[in-house]
Amino acid sequence: MTIRAGIYGATGYTGLELVRLLAGHPAVSIAFATSETSAGQSLRQSWPQAPDLPLVTAADAPLDAVDVVFLCLPHTRSAPLAAQALAHGVRVVDLSADLRLNDPAVYARWYGVTHPMPDLLPVPYGLPELGREHLRGARCIANPGCYATAVLLALTPLARAGVLVPGAPLIVDAKSGVSGAGRTPKQNILFCEVHGNFSPYSIGRAHRHLAEIEQVLAAENPSLGPVIFSPHLLPTDRGILATVYAPVTDMAAAQAALRELYAGESLVEVLPPGELATLGHTVRTPRAVLSLTPVTDSLLIVVCTLDNLLKGASSQAVQNFNLMFDLPEATGLLSAGA
Amino acid sequence: MTIRAGIYGATGYTGLELVRLLAGHPAVSIAFATSETSAGQSLRQSWPQAPDLPLVTAADAPLDAVDVVFLCLPHTRSAPLAAQALAHGVRVVDLSADLRLNDPAVYARWYGVTHPMPDLLPVPYGLPELGREHLRGARCIANPGCYATAVLLALTPLARAGVLVPGAPLIVDAKSGVSGAGRTPKQNILFCEVHGNFSPYSIGRAHRHLAEIEQVLAAENPSLGPVIFSPHLLPTDRGILATVYAPVTDMAAAQAALRELYAGESLVEVLPPGELATLGHTVRTPRAVLSLTPVTDSLLIVVCTLDNLLKGASSQAVQNFNLMFDLPEATGLLSAGA
Amino acid sequence: MTIRAGIYGATGYTGLELVRLLAGHPAVSIAFATSETSAGQSLRQSWPQAPDLPLVTAADAPLDAVDVVFLCLPHTRSAPLAAQALAHGVRVVDLSADLRLNDPAVYARWYGVTHPMPDLLPVPYGLPELGREHLRGARCIANPGCYATAVLLALTPLARAGVLVPGAPLIVDAKSGVSGAGRTPKQNILFCEVHGNFSPYSIGRAHRHLAEIEQVLAAENPSLGPVIFSPHLLPTDRGILATVYAPVTDMAAAQAALRELYAGESLVEVLPPGELATLGHTVRTPRAVLSLTPVTDSLLIVVCTLDNLLKGASSQAVQNFNLMFDLPEATGLLSAGA
Amino acid sequence: MTIRAGIYGATGYTGLELVRLLAGHPAVSIAFATSETSAGQSLRQSWPQAPDLPLVTAADAPLDAVDVVFLCLPHTRSAPLAAQALAHGVRVVDLSADLRLNDPAVYARWYGVTHPMPDLLPVPYGLPELGREHLRGARCIANPGCYATAVLLALTPLARAGVLVPGAPLIVDAKSGVSGAGRTPKQNILFCEVHGNFSPYSIGRAHRHLAEIEQVLAAENPSLGPVIFSPHLLPTDRGILATVYAPVTDMAAAQAALRELYAGESLVEVLPPGELATLGHTVRTPRAVLSLTPVTDSLLIVVCTLDNLLKGASSQAVQNFNLMFDLPEATGLLSAGA
Repeated sequence: MTIRAGIYGATGYTGLELVRLLAGHPAVSIAFATSETSAGQSLRQSWPQAPDLPLVTAADAPLDAVDVVFLCLPHTRSAPLAAQALAHGVRVVDLSADLRLNDPAVYARWYGVTHPMPDLLPVPYGLPELGREHLRGARCIANPGCYATAVLLALTPLARAGVLVPGAPLIVDAKSGVSGAGRTPKQNILFCEVHGNFSPYSIGRAHRHLAEIEQVLAAENPSLGPVIFSPHLLPTDRGILATVYAPVTDMAAAQAALRELYAGESLVEVLPPGELATLGHTVRTPRAVLSLTPVTDSLLIVVCTLDNLLKGASSQAVQNFNLMFDLPEATGLLSAGA
Repeated sequence: MTIRAGIYGATGYTGLELVRLLAGHPAVSIAFATSETSAGQSLRQSWPQAPDLPLVTAADAPLDAVDVVFLCLPHTRSAPLAAQALAHGVRVVDLSADLRLNDPAVYARWYGVTHPMPDLLPVPYGLPELGREHLRGARCIANPGCYATAVLLALTPLARAGVLVPGAPLIVDAKSGVSGAGRTPKQNILFCEVHGNFSPYSIGRAHRHLAEIEQVLAAENPSLGPVIFSPHLLPTDRGILATVYAPVTDMAAAQAALRELYAGESLVEVLPPGELATLGHTVRTPRAVLSLTPVTDSLLIVVCTLDNLLKGASSQAVQNFNLMFDLPEATGLLSAGA
Repeated sequence: MTIRAGIYGATGYTGLELVRLLAGHPAVSIAFATSETSAGQSLRQSWPQAPDLPLVTAADAPLDAVDVVFLCLPHTRSAPLAAQALAHGVRVVDLSADLRLNDPAVYARWYGVTHPMPDLLPVPYGLPELGREHLRGARCIANPGCYATAVLLALTPLARAGVLVPGAPLIVDAKSGVSGAGRTPKQNILFCEVHGNFSPYSIGRAHRHLAEIEQVLAAENPSLGPVIFSPHLLPTDRGILATVYAPVTDMAAAQAALRELYAGESLVEVLPPGELATLGHTVRTPRAVLSLTPVTDSLLIVVCTLDNLLKGASSQAVQNFNLMFDLPEATGLLSAGA
Repeated sequence: MTIRAGIYGATGYTGLELVRLLAGHPAVSIAFATSETSAGQSLRQSWPQAPDLPLVTAADAPLDAVDVVFLCLPHTRSAPLAAQALAHGVRVVDLSADLRLNDPAVYARWYGVTHPMPDLLPVPYGLPELGREHLRGARCIANPGCYATAVLLALTPLARAGVLVPGAPLIVDAKSGVSGAGRTPKQNILFCEVHGNFSPYSIGRAHRHLAEIEQVLAAENPSLGPVIFSPHLLPTDRGILATVYAPVTDMAAAQAALRELYAGESLVEVLPPGELATLGHTVRTPRAVLSLTPVTDSLLIVVCTLDNLLKGASSQAVQNFNLMFDLPEATGLLSAGA
């Protein structure tokens, strides 16, 4: 079986990784890749290691030549294309934020614009390790945010097990490589601004990923305290590390909840006691890795790391695609060396 | 007036910065600089921008030719030299951990060895902005740890003002450049291990700087909760950024306490509301910079940054030296451009 | 004496360094600093360590309030302001390329535009160590390019001494930190494009600095071979290192020419035999450092390093300013620690 | 068919890459991996992304359980193990320098020690694109040095085509990431020494790879001039870029020689005219990429880049292994995404 895929927004960092993964996926042929700024060129001109793939504008992309599209586009530009594809009977994995929030009013509050396609909502949230039943065979999946993936992998098992102290703030101190900020030139992501620097941004209750994080956690347990989320920009290209300070009611049960939920997973691992998760565990892999450090009777530090462009975006999109088409979930993601 | 200074351990990163500062200090002449491994060479062979200063062993250092010594040595090696210098009537600024803890039993617990010179204790703790009265004219000063300086600048004013929630954990998520790990070759600080990586270490209640942090905070307010301290290694050479999650009883009073304490300081600054402190504010300067982000009614995020080799070590040592000899505290530290 | 200075283009990397240097210069007061994009803000919003200096547009800059202006502007925008300032009796140090080439036709050929102010030409070329007689008291000085400074410091003494093999290609393999590309956002200087990368660009006979390099060398010796100049982009923020492969007729005379020319200089140093110049020798200093490696009887490798923003731009501009106003040439540049 | 492989020196950077490649190779099973310092541990303790492979000492490695060994060891330690393996009927791919030079006297001159196993010499030099006939079915192959691979890929086709100017120096300005210096802790490869720095080393006629480079070139054409080889240390972890200044007698023939020799190769590519090779073309791939820039009628700049750990070491070792066992040469190296 060959599934024909189209990729919108192929020249951004997420799109480039997705092309790379899909080009190596045994069940996929890439039918088209779009770029508004580089249409007419080869993808190789955007990235020297890319396959020699011609780029077209979204308007010229042949929806009738594909079975699925991946949308690596900014929010508000993505949802209309999702609607168009679904109307053509084409399935959709949306890597933007447009389809992650069930309630258009919440979207409007966090993103500052009216939701462009509220009728599409709700869409299954594609974080397979936290629930893949709604993803199997789905026609449309909302791929989670990079930070949201890391935070939810750490906190959801605790929320589900009922071991988080009700009402207590859930402090998450997160750090991301620069590729999370995209490839559009801006002064704050120039080499000379980032090299030798390290910067907090949108700390506390300001980052947009809080919306999807709290949506998922509230569905598990409505009595949780607020998530305090402090992202920082690391002087490296890729990778996210979230240091999560979880106030727990039962330390043994908390650790067991995390170890048990991920025990059978091939792409999420909890390290043995005493070992700490680092970016080096996960960068350039489709995996997330967690470590557990009990500090006091009631405070568990969970460190969760992943590659923001892979498990935080494109390889998770491939997991979702595989589930959508009833393929083994890690198809195209795991080689012996990766 | 020229004060004759000797520097022990001149070829480490802290020692090199101290030499640079003292070489430019208008009231200092450097009488000797020691290195056990490079004795007989010029300091320039250790660092291409260093002054052409001959290195001697500690055993060959002429104590009778100096008025003050700076000890940039590992713990346990420092205290005996401090005792020897004091016995010769030479004043001491100790940059090691040996003289920071008042109680030798606490030292033994955190450092795993018997204190080498318990009779020297206690020694004034040299964090001038938190109390400089005991430092003026002192014969011996314990220079604080780099992380401890950052954390105490953020938390001490809150403890002193009585606005921290009693018993609540004080979560500090800290990040440091690699120079904090010293210049002795070890695999974990090789370029290829750090580049593209980011790693937590000694998180929770394990890092030795907790001892001095809690000693200072307990003296301000014995009812505080535990400090949860999670250091991480940044892929950059220098700088510390501590993100401090302070549970406060009165948000306005908390912010006022920080702003007021540092209002007249030339080397510590609290940024205006809305601006966040970054490494870029302080790297290669003798300053610490703080920012205040109120998140909820009861949670204040204080970000404190400084250069671990300067305000976290050598420029703070010069502040202490200036106080010791009744010089203006910022002598040799502030030029218009720095 | 206080000389009142205005700085055009203060928010670029070169402008920021110049402000820092002039703010610490004992004979200078900064009267204004311009920025078209940030006028109305403080310079501190562009750079957290900058002085709190208000920015105005070039149109609003009070030329009658200054004795000298420094032009840190793109080519073609600089020369008209130079003409305007000179017409007001204000002296000019121009850091752009506009005034470096004596012949407007050569300018047109290399820069692809008609020279905006040909009547200003020629202007003394401000590389003091290669000839400061025309700079003392000058009303207008053309500050050399960063690469040109490094290459000319290595080759001019050899050309002057007549020891270069006539007609033989002069191969220069040069490497620069990213700040040389300026602060205007472009994709190729984003952090994620440069980190982990290293790229040649404009190699051979394509880079514009060839024009000023060959103008200077031809004035020394018209029989030289072509300069082959290959710049590369380094994954670091600042610094230039040029590896110059000089075919020489007399190895001893060649080395002597370099050592003797710089023997009395405070800002240019030739390292002792056996030691190689590195970026670490010069980054964040106003100095250039050279090393000499004789390879065969007829091939001398000269490595020249400097900080592209300092000796390659702003500190050299201060040297030229000092000469212009009969101040000691290194005023404001050398502290004991720098 | 499964070929059983043993890897000596698995915890260095080259060994780690080789394990990763062989673990994903469809025809290989890894029978053992050695480390003197980490024997008894899992390879995963040396590298978080490594397979969970037990490490043994070389003395405990079961030679009778393997068909081939890969030697990732320092020179002088490698040749005796090669002799031992060959004596057991086990084939050898040696990644050290021990078997690269045909003449033990040349080895003694460049490496400063007597060759430990001169009777093994000569051994085929494993640079497949320059001649794979001696590698097919070979029992022992000397894997080339990383710099040597880059330089020879650029110069050998020109030497073979007879288009290099006889006797003229062949200037090679090369730059390497830090992993080329190995994983044994030394001060000069600490993060803080390399970050923000760039350094030449062993420039001119001093680097050991000159011996193998000139051995290969002399076999093609004995009338060539000396190779002038100047390596520099880049502030990045991996990758080599060599800028080669080739004096040619016929520019068209020179370019044709390079394009034609590599026309059918899957792992070496010559870029189209106008495009320049960068580290980004090859890092983390098994490929070498070259670009050609004609500068004058008689000077061609060839830029050659590769990943020093892959085409410069471990993936080239896999090419050689594949040739040795009559497998398609790129087996285990090329996936669609790599």
